Amino acid sequence: MSETATPATVLTDAQRQRILDAVDAAFDDQIAFTQELVRHPSVRTNEQSAQDLIFGALEQRGLEMDRWQLDPEDLAEHPGAGYVEVSYDGVDNVVGTYRPASEDGRSLILNGHIDVVPEGPEDQWSRSPWDAAIIDGWLHGRGAGDMKSGLVANLFALDAVRAAGLTPTGRIHLQSVVEEECTGNGSLSALMRGYTADAVLIPEPEEDMLVRANVGVIWFRVRVSGQPTHPREMSHGFNAIDAAYHVVGRLRELEERWNAEKTKHRYFEDLDHPINLNVGKINGGDWGSSVPAWCEVDLRIALYPGVTAEDAWQEITAELAKITEDDGGHAIEAVATRTGFFAQGYVLEEGSSAEEALRESHRAAFGGAELGSFTTPGYLDGRVFVQYADIPTLVYGPVSEAIHGNDERVDIESIRRITKSIALFIAEWCGVDDEV
Amino acid sequence: MSETATPATVLTDAQRQRILDAVDAAFDDQIAFTQELVRHPSVRTNEQSAQDLIFGALEQRGLEMDRWQLDPEDLAEHPGAGYVEVSYDGVDNVVGTYRPASEDGRSLILNGHIDVVPEGPEDQWSRSPWDAAIIDGWLHGRGAGDMKSGLVANLFALDAVRAAGLTPTGRIHLQSVVEEECTGNGSLSALMRGYTADAVLIPEPEEDMLVRANVGVIWFRVRVSGQPTHPREMSHGFNAIDAAYHVVGRLRELEERWNAEKTKHRYFEDLDHPINLNVGKINGGDWGSSVPAWCEVDLRIALYPGVTAEDAWQEITAELAKITEDDGGHAIEAVATRTGFFAQGYVLEEGSSAEEALRESHRAAFGGAELGSFTTPGYLDGRVFVQYADIPTLVYGPVSEAIHGNDERVDIESIRRITKSIALFIAEWCGVDDEV
Repeated sequence: MSETATPATVLTDAQRQRILDAVDAAFDDQIAFTQELVRHPSVRTNEQSAQDLIFGALEQRGLEMDRWQLDPEDLAEHPGAGYVEVSYDGVDNVVGTYRPASEDGRSLILNGHIDVVPEGPEDQWSRSPWDAAIIDGWLHGRGAGDMKSGLVANLFALDAVRAAGLTPTGRIHLQSVVEEECTGNGSLSALMRGYTADAVLIPEPEEDMLVRANVGVIWFRVRVSGQPTHPREMSHGFNAIDAAYHVVGRLRELEERWNAEKTKHRYFEDLDHPINLNVGKINGGDWGSSVPAWCEVDLRIALYPGVTAEDAWQEITAELAKITEDDGGHAIEAVATRTGFFAQGYVLEEGSSAEEALRESHRAAFGGAELGSFTTPGYLDGRVFVQYADIPTLVYGPVSEAIHGNDERVDIESIRRITKSIALFIAEWCGVDDEV
Repeated sequence: MSETATPATVLTDAQRQRILDAVDAAFDDQIAFTQELVRHPSVRTNEQSAQDLIFGALEQRGLEMDRWQLDPEDLAEHPGAGYVEVSYDGVDNVVGTYRPASEDGRSLILNGHIDVVPEGPEDQWSRSPWDAAIIDGWLHGRGAGDMKSGLVANLFALDAVRAAGLTPTGRIHLQSVVEEECTGNGSLSALMRGYTADAVLIPEPEEDMLVRANVGVIWFRVRVSGQPTHPREMSHGFNAIDAAYHVVGRLRELEERWNAEKTKHRYFEDLDHPINLNVGKINGGDWGSSVPAWCEVDLRIALYPGVTAEDAWQEITAELAKITEDDGGHAIEAVATRTGFFAQGYVLEEGSSAEEALRESHRAAFGGAELGSFTTPGYLDGRVFVQYADIPTLVYGPVSEAIHGNDERVDIESIRRITKSIALFIAEWCGVDDEV
């Protein structure tokens, strides 16, 4: 259904208030359920038990259920798929569909990811990353912000609309996807399965703001080969760990060249440093007393919207080839392979009715405050829907701290306001029949 | 038995020739046996099958056999023990003792290590590291030079003396020890078990030369802690992998300060770079898109004889503490732990009768050439016997290439000459009864 076919419902003030009250009424349950979800350590390939919990919660609400395992071969056909280095055994997407009796309203995908990044050394945390403690109005834990609170907000927002006696008249897909933190293959797989809609909303932790633009991301591994020897003959050897650092230095020059081009990219002009090269993992050498023969570095680099992953990849591999060329004597060999994300960034074009509807909902939920928008130098699954299905996609969610870091946490009152905003948006976007 | 009690036997030219001929007669068998031994990949904790082979070969020769598993707790009592990070289950030393009817001659330990360093990436080798191929007069393979050819040379040298109809009149311990490449605990355990003698000979691959002095070695791991974040907030994070490189840079300054002191250390004045800091292994980070929270670097550093491991360790840890101090803002935390060697270097004092006897043997085996001596910037088990039992220890062995590297190999004719020299040394040092 095209978004021009049905104008947004204009809710009455009373209807709005019923929705807001319904969010408040269920909010303790919502936070308790979020805590339960945070306690499932759904790091990559370990999402199963968390997806079971979500599946049960959606099914219990009478939604039409779908659950499927991701298929690396199917995905590999798609240009936007990330490279898969793990087994997808038991790595499932879950979708619950709300289907109105008569589909008069606009359809909506409420998307969120279930996977979380690894917690890292637990002794660097103030408490267990998995105990989901509430302290001074913050919910703590790995994934609390990124993005289990948002995923659960989707569910409770829809609950609130219905609890308010309003029946959405548009189709709604509640998606709990995997692989957002490494490939983006979860949302891509949902799209390839046929799920589309007139708008998508993804409550990533975005500080109560709407994402206007973001970067694409490529994950890759550089393997550097050295010339091992006994340390007694060290000057004849060639240390692959040192060489890896040299290679990273050269890639940082590429990073700076890309950052210098920010003025050419709309919405990125004012960012300090939009393109970040992250050295995420390193592993090299076999023996303390052998000059190491090899070193592998896992890197993540960003790219501007409009730059294809393929073009960025060409530049990266050309830079690596040049390192070998420039290094006549030692003949550093640095070989790059893709290890995950191979994704272009996206821009949410201004002026969509979806954004207009969200602005309205935001004002109502945030006491009249205008919805801000910003550009983020991180990856978002939004690119899947914008780029491959041309769907306006609203990435918008609560206030968090230290996502991907130690002591990740999310602001509970921010979750409340965001949930209210999403609930109002659902009603306004999809339209509602009032049963009261 | 003190070495002054019995002067070295002076062999007749005919006796010498019988010994040299006996080495030649068995040399094909010796090389075949060395090949068989090289085919056992006796990397650390995997020495069992190679020790079985040695045990069988010693037992077959009627030696008095001893085999025992190393005990980390016993070892930990000794100041020269290396720190043990592995299980010693099945990690055995093997000793075969030749005991003459009447012990009139000087006693001798013929020591060699069975452990080899890891082969590294096999695709960097021209052929399998374990096929023990002979090409153009070189025996190839991991451990071929360091030091299975020497270990087997000890055995066949004693064979040759006996095959020549000569019966040594001194006690001889043939030791096949583990752990030379990481802790030195194998030789130390043999000493702690009570094995001593009037001289020790260790045929490490030393280019047909005698080691006059060598360095001590410490193995340690530095764990650097960072401040993980999402790459979108990279400037707030603190990358532990970058920090680890910074720490290594600071330790390289320490290395250079130590190298600058070489003029104060007898036998090290003329070496270009006696103190080598090797970055042997690195491992850090959990996730491509998280600024890494930790990085561990495994390092090996050398120390001059006369500098205790304890003193060197104090300097290393003080340097690390200073890094944290100097880095007020980021507060790098770099913590060092011992991971293996904690060993002082040694000097073979000039003028021992053992060295005199070897000079004589060397001349006879190498066509009149004088025995050269040199200082090596590598670890040697010789330190165990020199330092803790005051035994003159002759580290002296064949010509090799690329020990600890790719395509390690040992010169076969060099093995022949060294075996001849060892055989003559056994006879001259221990004394012989001539049964012909």
